Amino acid sequence: CSSSSSGSRGPDMDELLRRTVAALPPYESRGISPALREGPSQEFVDFYRALETDGRAALLTKLAADYGADHGLVSQLCGQVTEGRDVDALLQAEARLRYSLTPRYKLLIGHICRLEGGVKFLVDLRADILQLLQSQSADSPQLREMNGILKMLLSDWFSVGFLNLERITWHSSCDLLQKISMYEAVHPVRNWVDIKRRVGPYRRCYVFTHNAMPREPLVVLHVALTDDIAKNIQAIVQYGPSPERSEDVNKITTAIFYSISTSQQGLQGVELGNYLIKRVVKELQGEFPHMKKFSSLSPIPGFTTWLLEILQIKEGKSNQIFTELEYKEIQDAIEGPVLETLKRLLSTNEWVRSDKLVRALEMPLMRLCAWYLYGEKHHGAALNPVANFHLQNGAVLWRLNWLADVSPRGLSSSSGMMANYRYFLEDTNHNSIQYLRSRHIEASEQILSLAAQCQKSSKL
Amino acid sequence: CSSSSSGSRGPDMDELLRRTVAALPPYESRGISPALREGPSQEFVDFYRALETDGRAALLTKLAADYGADHGLVSQLCGQVTEGRDVDALLQAEARLRYSLTPRYKLLIGHICRLEGGVKFLVDLRADILQLLQSQSADSPQLREMNGILKMLLSDWFSVGFLNLERITWHSSCDLLQKISMYEAVHPVRNWVDIKRRVGPYRRCYVFTHNAMPREPLVVLHVALTDDIAKNIQAIVQYGPSPERSEDVNKITTAIFYSISTSQQGLQGVELGNYLIKRVVKELQGEFPHMKKFSSLSPIPGFTTWLLEILQIKEGKSNQIFTELEYKEIQDAIEGPVLETLKRLLSTNEWVRSDKLVRALEMPLMRLCAWYLYGEKHHGAALNPVANFHLQNGAVLWRLNWLADVSPRGLSSSSGMMANYRYFLEDTNHNSIQYLRSRHIEASEQILSLAAQCQKSSKL
Amino acid sequence: CSSSSSGSRGPDMDELLRRTVAALPPYESRGISPALREGPSQEFVDFYRALETDGRAALLTKLAADYGADHGLVSQLCGQVTEGRDVDALLQAEARLRYSLTPRYKLLIGHICRLEGGVKFLVDLRADILQLLQSQSADSPQLREMNGILKMLLSDWFSVGFLNLERITWHSSCDLLQKISMYEAVHPVRNWVDIKRRVGPYRRCYVFTHNAMPREPLVVLHVALTDDIAKNIQAIVQYGPSPERSEDVNKITTAIFYSISTSQQGLQGVELGNYLIKRVVKELQGEFPHMKKFSSLSPIPGFTTWLLEILQIKEGKSNQIFTELEYKEIQDAIEGPVLETLKRLLSTNEWVRSDKLVRALEMPLMRLCAWYLYGEKHHGAALNPVANFHLQNGAVLWRLNWLADVSPRGLSSSSGMMANYRYFLEDTNHNSIQYLRSRHIEASEQILSLAAQCQKSSKL
Amino acid sequence: CSSSSSGSRGPDMDELLRRTVAALPPYESRGISPALREGPSQEFVDFYRALETDGRAALLTKLAADYGADHGLVSQLCGQVTEGRDVDALLQAEARLRYSLTPRYKLLIGHICRLEGGVKFLVDLRADILQLLQSQSADSPQLREMNGILKMLLSDWFSVGFLNLERITWHSSCDLLQKISMYEAVHPVRNWVDIKRRVGPYRRCYVFTHNAMPREPLVVLHVALTDDIAKNIQAIVQYGPSPERSEDVNKITTAIFYSISTSQQGLQGVELGNYLIKRVVKELQGEFPHMKKFSSLSPIPGFTTWLLEILQIKEGKSNQIFTELEYKEIQDAIEGPVLETLKRLLSTNEWVRSDKLVRALEMPLMRLCAWYLYGEKHHGAALNPVANFHLQNGAVLWRLNWLADVSPRGLSSSSGMMANYRYFLEDTNHNSIQYLRSRHIEASEQILSLAAQCQKSSKL
Repeated sequence: CSSSSSGSRGPDMDELLRRTVAALPPYESRGISPALREGPSQEFVDFYRALETDGRAALLTKLAADYGADHGLVSQLCGQVTEGRDVDALLQAEARLRYSLTPRYKLLIGHICRLEGGVKFLVDLRADILQLLQSQSADSPQLREMNGILKMLLSDWFSVGFLNLERITWHSSCDLLQKISMYEAVHPVRNWVDIKRRVGPYRRCYVFTHNAMPREPLVVLHVALTDDIAKNIQAIVQYGPSPERSEDVNKITTAIFYSISTSQQGLQGVELGNYLIKRVVKELQGEFPHMKKFSSLSPIPGFTTWLLEILQIKEGKSNQIFTELEYKEIQDAIEGPVLETLKRLLSTNEWVRSDKLVRALEMPLMRLCAWYLYGEKHHGAALNPVANFHLQNGAVLWRLNWLADVSPRGLSSSSGMMANYRYFLEDTNHNSIQYLRSRHIEASEQILSLAAQCQKSSKL
Repeated sequence: CSSSSSGSRGPDMDELLRRTVAALPPYESRGISPALREGPSQEFVDFYRALETDGRAALLTKLAADYGADHGLVSQLCGQVTEGRDVDALLQAEARLRYSLTPRYKLLIGHICRLEGGVKFLVDLRADILQLLQSQSADSPQLREMNGILKMLLSDWFSVGFLNLERITWHSSCDLLQKISMYEAVHPVRNWVDIKRRVGPYRRCYVFTHNAMPREPLVVLHVALTDDIAKNIQAIVQYGPSPERSEDVNKITTAIFYSISTSQQGLQGVELGNYLIKRVVKELQGEFPHMKKFSSLSPIPGFTTWLLEILQIKEGKSNQIFTELEYKEIQDAIEGPVLETLKRLLSTNEWVRSDKLVRALEMPLMRLCAWYLYGEKHHGAALNPVANFHLQNGAVLWRLNWLADVSPRGLSSSSGMMANYRYFLEDTNHNSIQYLRSRHIEASEQILSLAAQCQKSSKL
Repeated sequence: CSSSSSGSRGPDMDELLRRTVAALPPYESRGISPALREGPSQEFVDFYRALETDGRAALLTKLAADYGADHGLVSQLCGQVTEGRDVDALLQAEARLRYSLTPRYKLLIGHICRLEGGVKFLVDLRADILQLLQSQSADSPQLREMNGILKMLLSDWFSVGFLNLERITWHSSCDLLQKISMYEAVHPVRNWVDIKRRVGPYRRCYVFTHNAMPREPLVVLHVALTDDIAKNIQAIVQYGPSPERSEDVNKITTAIFYSISTSQQGLQGVELGNYLIKRVVKELQGEFPHMKKFSSLSPIPGFTTWLLEILQIKEGKSNQIFTELEYKEIQDAIEGPVLETLKRLLSTNEWVRSDKLVRALEMPLMRLCAWYLYGEKHHGAALNPVANFHLQNGAVLWRLNWLADVSPRGLSSSSGMMANYRYFLEDTNHNSIQYLRSRHIEASEQILSLAAQCQKSSKL
Repeated sequence: CSSSSSGSRGPDMDELLRRTVAALPPYESRGISPALREGPSQEFVDFYRALETDGRAALLTKLAADYGADHGLVSQLCGQVTEGRDVDALLQAEARLRYSLTPRYKLLIGHICRLEGGVKFLVDLRADILQLLQSQSADSPQLREMNGILKMLLSDWFSVGFLNLERITWHSSCDLLQKISMYEAVHPVRNWVDIKRRVGPYRRCYVFTHNAMPREPLVVLHVALTDDIAKNIQAIVQYGPSPERSEDVNKITTAIFYSISTSQQGLQGVELGNYLIKRVVKELQGEFPHMKKFSSLSPIPGFTTWLLEILQIKEGKSNQIFTELEYKEIQDAIEGPVLETLKRLLSTNEWVRSDKLVRALEMPLMRLCAWYLYGEKHHGAALNPVANFHLQNGAVLWRLNWLADVSPRGLSSSSGMMANYRYFLEDTNHNSIQYLRSRHIEASEQILSLAAQCQKSSKL
């Protein structure tokens, strides 16, 4: 579609936006029903859908820039807010000010969400905005603002009170199961035998759905029911119990959250995952009143990259990374220059083929990984996003597991390790608050001891 | 429960609010997940529910007064908004200002809506606020503000995109049908034979429901399927077709909306009725592609009261109300002093028993009523709320019907008349905009002619 | 419709039957698919439905008489069955004979059951046959045979494996609840508050339905959940817990079956009630694992009539009915000739108004009733149909309750008494077999003692 | 389980059967409720399920032989049936006789069908019987009789009035879709993309299910919606429209039944397929009121085998099979001795790779196949089972299609041809009766002409 060049589309777009984005009614008549603007809103939707990436970028940029709040009015009303006035006048002034801060495009959004399929359109539109923001060289404060406004609206609409919890089984609809297979990002579903096992005995699969986006799982949580906190993922996703076995309730004491995936890019930043975990815990407690342990079994994405960087940085200071004995064992296990070779083997995942090397690396990598999770921060929060997610939810950084995921993906991202974030239900609230307020990370002895060793020797 | 006196509760309340209403996080960390505050929010809900009316009033007043926006901060940020600055800085300043205008109680509301039954609680809470606002001698700007904030949130949550349209039939759940019977305010349902007829052949009953308030019809629309625009209500609610007859599609050309009731006081001002009518029109067009006419058959609440006032005002100037001939006929039909007796007969509904009087009053009352609907205004909008509702929706003030509802309720409120507001589907959008902008009322020849006569003679 | 006189219809009927009742295919081609005879079968159904009672009687009689088995063929094949032959030949001969004993109308029935609504038609047709058989002065062996054939088919189709158990609550469909109210024959439902209570807390209501008769409850069982075996019905149907209360599981130890009604006359003799009780017991055990007692609270229909007959028979031998002391007390409580007055008071239910008389009658009536239930037989089985039903199911005749149902209906039929038939789950099978085989009635001490006293004194 | 040898099991079996198969109650008490024999029936089921093939064979044989009808009683009652007696006595004698012909095992069956999962057990039991009958060298008339009795009962239970029609879509339950994929015998489903297409746009998939066998499709019908009668299967199962396209109703004038599979071996001989076609036709007419043509696109299983036999038989008389010209063309297309090579190429499916040979064979194979379908009979009915099925349903043998299924399976069984059996709805009843009565096959000009040529030249 050659006409999608922003040049030729420019006038069309201006014209379209003029026609479809209504003006903010005066404050006085804000309570009166706006006319049902179905036609123009639908026109906007259709126009947008027909555009290619460039056209969409142009339209979104224009919308954000030209249809925001009336800055003149805001500025003027700001002048009228003076704290000293009587309460009534003050509140009135604030109300007017609040109203004036509404961008015009917020009205358009409000109308679109009323259309059939409108909410899904807005979720996808936000995915476009996010991509645009990521790719744009030139900064666009207006676009960032529009993203913030839209995120806030989506957060309101996708409040947990409006979500439906659904358990997915082999009796669920085929299209849902196919989507869940597709969305599973943590431990990819290979085929239908695989997915059948993940919804079979000793497994649970829950999703949140929303009435305004029928047949779309928003976030998916996979749980394994076990008799202790799982140490590796293979036992769960590859060699699970056969779909025909029935569950022995007495063997179920522990719930392992082994995969949580959000499927809508446009809902980034809208909290769904933690609410889903919380709801699922309640469901499981209802089904298994004697369940004692709740824990994740989580990947550590980014660790291998971080590790290679550290090795780079510490070039020539390998004694800050390995003990003498460790270094010796590594040297014995490989050929060629130690650090260089090691980096190659780590980045190609080949190290895992040598039992000797595996043994030699266990202690130093566990130590480094414990520090990576416990000590590395970004804006004060845990650098690792998975750790940050579970710590925000109030979980405890519980255990590091060696050789827990030796799939190519597991090796590339996490050097084969996985972490358990354990949920002590009576403490999660307190932990969460502590973490959010003071950035305190609640961790087990194992983690604390490993991290301390690392910090001491590595001076990290 | 004697402890509910506001006196003794005061300290408790302060304590409770301190505990349960979180502070607004700093702007910088607004994006970070708040801890799951289920406990405190639930505590607030339980505390509130246990209170009597007085205690509730006290708590709400305190909440509105002490947990609003931080006025100092608002004022300070206002100073920083200066139009001249570069876009980025300006938008940032506006965003901070917008955020600072968030009342603290909005966070509490946001947490409550996540609880099970939380949305219903908030709807009922707003009903309490509305009642409080109506009853309060002393004005409370803070309470009014809280009402506004809550209404806005409810409007977002009860957006039409999140509502479920449900058709109610005799196969629907008993509890739903009982609630619908109970909520029917326009033409009360007398018994189960009555409700069975209203969901039977040649009738439709639709409701909006919301996932967060299961088993609660929010707004109910009753429709009669006829072969022409109905002139009176008796034929519809009393002598309808028997529930066993099947519908003859060829006899159905017209849909009469004969009752629309909202059932949740707390959703006052949240537009549901017009969206329901719109959706139902679509449903009906799907079911009956050849349907030609859509119209309401509506009461005219307030007319009798208005009429009696006019008669009072025009005392001694009865020639402004009745023509000479009319006056003569009325005089012939009653005994005693004409106007005084007439007022008594009108206020007791007894006039309808005299055929002579009924004939004598037809012309003058129709004239007055046409004027009442067309000419009487309140803040520029139609004074009569039912008229205002349909005109906002874009309907045409189509026809006045004499002796259309001779039930006691129909006589007391509307002097036995009913109005048809007709929906010409291709014009409703235009009409609605015209009415909202310029207060122009689209009306039929009958209405215009009657209203003109009235205005001329009565000098209204 | 005057043309329904059997005279004028005669030829039509013959013609219709010829057209619609197919001939039995030869034995050899019995396996081959019959053509889809939807047309003729539907014609029969429509014809039958349009007839009045007389016409139906005529048609049924004709069908039974003229379209039975081919007696000539049966007789001929009978000659070919000789036990001495080799197994193959014998079985073949028997198979042919069995086939030849199929009445032609059985084919018609088989086709009708395939029509939409066909099964319901056949159930109603059997109701007609049963009424005809009851009313007919002239005996009709063919009609009796057709009834037997149809009953057998219905028994097959309404086998418990093909029935759906449904729990009815206040959320169930309105039409179902209305039908259940209507069908309740034991303790009539007076209004919707009444039915709401019967499906509310501490109550259960279960029905069997069948796919081929959608929206039709076949048999209805009402259960009260209590903490002991109920002694009277008022507490259950009149003063039950309010519909808003929630159940306290700890207070529920006992299930009282207080009403079981079949709603389809045409399923008379098809066992549904005992299967329903059995299934419900399982449901309740699932819901309340600690439930200890299961018992009916049942009326004793026919007792008052039987009592009045006994009083008639024992005229002049009142010492066989009452002890001297009892007689004296009765005499004190009433005026006029004792037995005559007593009979009048019993047949008008007035006796219950005199506390004195109530006290005086308690012992003798309990004694007589115990005997009536335990000792009175019909073809070897218990004379009282309710007793026979529960005893066949394997229940124990457990307790007689005085003043247990003082409603007019309870007084008229059961002189105000009710019986508990108790189900000891581990014994029901054994009891049922004992009762069916040897007519042994398992009864409690109370019953045995009362019945023995009665038998001794009354020489019954 | 070594104890399953029939030797050691013998006594156990006798014992078990004595315990679990009740005696037929005397005729007089046939109406009285049998005790609930759940325990013994369940014992039989569990015992049977634990047996291996040999044990099952032994048990079934014993059951059929020792628990049939009481031949002595039958013989005796036969003597009492004399046609000359009065109606009442005659009917009574017949009723007793009919009752005496009930095998004892029929009671066991009746009890098993009341168990949970009982019906499915009986269906599977019959599958075992059928396999046993097929495999047995020694003939077993009793087993054959038991099969007949069981088939009759299953036919009653699986009457169309008790079946649920379900449309299967991509939204249907995964387990159902997997079973349907698995059961598809005509054109095997290769993967999930395949099955998604078969339930996608321009396709319909319907099943019958039965309440007593939940989640089990009994018979599956696949339909393609096209604009003309389809000529080959590839277009339907391989290159169908993409699952995302929406249907253009205007392009749909024809329904092609391209696969019908029964999935329960134990329901062999129970008519389900023809009823399913009939119901689906009604559904389609409801959805597409203007649909004009209904036809199958069917394989011709057995034709290749038959063809090779004919070629064998006609060895040396190839002029009866091919015209001189045809023979010449074949000779040109192959190498080596003509008939021998041809037979090899036909039996290995290699012939289809040579365009020349394909052209040369078209006429003679079409001719032979037309004869095979039209002229070859078995017990008077069409030899080809698919032809027989559709002709019984009243379809017309409409068209032979060359190269209509060139899959290995299509070549092996049908030499690549497929047949259309067309359903002219107004004629199916008549055609069916004609076919069943007089074995008349309704066929199109194409078929008649081809068959006539074949008969003439080939002297078949």
